[in-house]
Amino acid sequence: MSHNVEELQLKAAQLNRQTHELGIPVMVLFEGIPASGKTRLSNELLLHLDAKYTQFISTKSPQAHDLRYQFLQKYWNSLPQKGDINIYFRSWYSHYLDYKENEIKHDKYKSYDVLVNQINDFETMLKKDNFEIIKFFIEINEEKRQEHIQQTKNNPLMKWKVQEYENVIPQETYLNNMRYFIKKDKDWKVIDYTERHQAFEKMYLHIIKRLEKAIEKVENENNNVDGMFTTDFTTSLFDIDLPKVHKKTYKDKIIELQQRMREIQFALYETKIPLVLVFEGMDAAGKGGNIKRIREKLDPTGYEVNGISAPTDVEKNHHYLWRFAKKMPKTGHIEIFDRSWYGRVLVERVEGFANKDEWRSAYEEINQFEKMWTDEGTIVLKFFLCLDKDEQLKRFNDREKNPDKQWKITDEDWRNRKKWGQYLEASHDMIKNTNTSHAPWYIIPANHKKTGRIEVLKTIIRKCEAVLWGVKDY
Amino acid sequence: MSHNVEELQLKAAQLNRQTHELGIPVMVLFEGIPASGKTRLSNELLLHLDAKYTQFISTKSPQAHDLRYQFLQKYWNSLPQKGDINIYFRSWYSHYLDYKENEIKHDKYKSYDVLVNQINDFETMLKKDNFEIIKFFIEINEEKRQEHIQQTKNNPLMKWKVQEYENVIPQETYLNNMRYFIKKDKDWKVIDYTERHQAFEKMYLHIIKRLEKAIEKVENENNNVDGMFTTDFTTSLFDIDLPKVHKKTYKDKIIELQQRMREIQFALYETKIPLVLVFEGMDAAGKGGNIKRIREKLDPTGYEVNGISAPTDVEKNHHYLWRFAKKMPKTGHIEIFDRSWYGRVLVERVEGFANKDEWRSAYEEINQFEKMWTDEGTIVLKFFLCLDKDEQLKRFNDREKNPDKQWKITDEDWRNRKKWGQYLEASHDMIKNTNTSHAPWYIIPANHKKTGRIEVLKTIIRKCEAVLWGVKDY
Repeated sequence: MSHNVEELQLKAAQLNRQTHELGIPVMVLFEGIPASGKTRLSNELLLHLDAKYTQFISTKSPQAHDLRYQFLQKYWNSLPQKGDINIYFRSWYSHYLDYKENEIKHDKYKSYDVLVNQINDFETMLKKDNFEIIKFFIEINEEKRQEHIQQTKNNPLMKWKVQEYENVIPQETYLNNMRYFIKKDKDWKVIDYTERHQAFEKMYLHIIKRLEKAIEKVENENNNVDGMFTTDFTTSLFDIDLPKVHKKTYKDKIIELQQRMREIQFALYETKIPLVLVFEGMDAAGKGGNIKRIREKLDPTGYEVNGISAPTDVEKNHHYLWRFAKKMPKTGHIEIFDRSWYGRVLVERVEGFANKDEWRSAYEEINQFEKMWTDEGTIVLKFFLCLDKDEQLKRFNDREKNPDKQWKITDEDWRNRKKWGQYLEASHDMIKNTNTSHAPWYIIPANHKKTGRIEVLKTIIRKCEAVLWGVKDY
Repeated sequence: MSHNVEELQLKAAQLNRQTHELGIPVMVLFEGIPASGKTRLSNELLLHLDAKYTQFISTKSPQAHDLRYQFLQKYWNSLPQKGDINIYFRSWYSHYLDYKENEIKHDKYKSYDVLVNQINDFETMLKKDNFEIIKFFIEINEEKRQEHIQQTKNNPLMKWKVQEYENVIPQETYLNNMRYFIKKDKDWKVIDYTERHQAFEKMYLHIIKRLEKAIEKVENENNNVDGMFTTDFTTSLFDIDLPKVHKKTYKDKIIELQQRMREIQFALYETKIPLVLVFEGMDAAGKGGNIKRIREKLDPTGYEVNGISAPTDVEKNHHYLWRFAKKMPKTGHIEIFDRSWYGRVLVERVEGFANKDEWRSAYEEINQFEKMWTDEGTIVLKFFLCLDKDEQLKRFNDREKNPDKQWKITDEDWRNRKKWGQYLEASHDMIKNTNTSHAPWYIIPANHKKTGRIEVLKTIIRKCEAVLWGVKDY
């Protein structure tokens, strides 16, 4: 190897130590037909970065296990944390072509363009969060490529590997599709591997350029944490009234709905439809009580409740949607979120944990995020339990008096109460900006607990019946 | 439900808040034949604990994906963290019977007793770490059971579930085996579900008793952090000499070995044998350089390097082996650990992060832990790179002078150097206590880097050749 490449290796490693310290997550994608030199180039890079924060991820054809999850699930799960670098040997682009060309889950998508949109949204939201995504497409002349293949074939211990070259996607199809992507997206860097030495140089030069740019960008970042609140905010959004459910009818009604909910669970399981239920609302609005009524008769092997607290340090080190993406349900399962990704535009906005830019772009990101699951038929229903300020005070006081409920009330609840107006405005904006047709919000008056619970259960059942059997609300 | 059971529910929830605060991990196992009432009992418990720290885990027959991993892998991965509670609907006992009765991986084990030993070792090491393991076996009279089944069959939306009752293990076999376990192990609590109300009461009473005991135990814990070091410790264990490899021959030799290593990787992949390589040694002994030489020609899709740093707060909240268990290789893959679980008896002993009881019991735990993988044919090879004190000083100084290596040397390295004698003794004891036939240690003199690297590669190749093709060392 020439002196020049050695220098470039050192320079890239040095910059990578900087991106590590600055907490910049880096993703390097390698695409190209089999035996084009992808392995050698990606390996070259891998060997010259610090193994402590470098991960090599190879995209293979999805197995039965993978197919129970969302298209991008495995890429969400393995996102690099702040300062780490992931090298993708084949990426979500190959993954997409595998889906499209082999008609995987073809009954789920109107068209495979849905997945192209998901990829765009995924990359856009990562870039927004300072992810540096570097994309290489490796080319080679055919003669040279055949040489590579022959080398492998000649080794009795390795010749079975040649089967990999008879790929899951026909080569011409792969190339045509990739050329289309490369033409559309200036971010791709095409490297010809025919001249190995030049290819190494080009790869390093491009990486160096991109890491330098990423470092510069982060160093000039604007960190305005303005929550942009209105003084004396008022809204009529939450002024919803429901006829009170009487104590006498409640008991029978709730049992009837819970039985139906159990049947719905079985029907979802049988038809492999996942269900996501999101609960947000003021403190003491009764999220836990509502969730308890929903799950009371469910088969516990088919659902999970995720109580969302402040992120751990590992979670803080990741994209804010990462910890939720990992929890999204597989086919036929139910995930219930007691608080959720909406923390980004609620507590994070109010407390300044997310800057102005971050919480404002979160609305669209969240809409896109939810769509990744609804695109595949997941039912996503979101409930906002609203309470008035007096009723909250009453419940807080009740909790403090009852020894079995004291643990439920903390100083933080009282602190949040002082910011009632800000939470109200943040909740209002959240609903206005994320009430989509694919993942709608339901505002549930929660001053009267029993009424709210009946309403939530009814809504879930009605929506699931509509999906399962086309039952309409007349 | 009678007043009595409600009181018990509250009491159990209250105690569970205490175990949560004390950081006690709890595992509650439910075994029993289908339709015996397991679901209702486990669900009853689930509904009365705090969803924030309760997980419901259901054991199903292993799928292709699971079979690529170790027998207990999924239980390792999902271990409750400190203060959390896992409810197991069918547990590793059902899992074991599934393996045994369906002859899963029968070519891997001498006998299925191997798995019984693994279960014992697993439970023993968890209990040692203050895990409270509560085991229920649910019985019911046959008439009542048939009633349960009929109820499900009568509902058109749920009748498909009845297929689950035609279980993977014949009922009589299941019962006979479980009765054997229950007889042997006093920890099992048998509950007759024929009288539902009594069953609930019994369950809660037993849980209350056990949680109270667990709390008492933790409150009286002895936290002696003595590292038990000898003054002026000396050992001849590391006085090994190897003929120096000359610079001239090194280059050819290393390339030859790396080519062979690549072939070995392919052969391991094809025969589905996993390989684990562990590297320990003094700071600056050259672990990274050694690992780099091993991986240089490997296919990066088939191996991973795990650089082990101080645990994250999530990792600290788990059993100390958890973060490593999650990283163990699937079939045909290679995992390289740059530092490892041996931190427990090295840095944790020296720095007092583990108490005397903990690091002393770790030797046996680690032996058992490694055996869980070698039982299934995983090759585990452990390398200790030893350096003398003068050579370390020389390397530290070199690193400080070289701008491209400065990042490699930290204050911590200098601090550790001051405890040279303690690290030496800890390393000595580690090798003496964990040099097993299933997972041997290789002491590699590392004063001369090139010689050490050749020796490591040769050892790996020789050991793998022995497993793959019975090649012996003559």
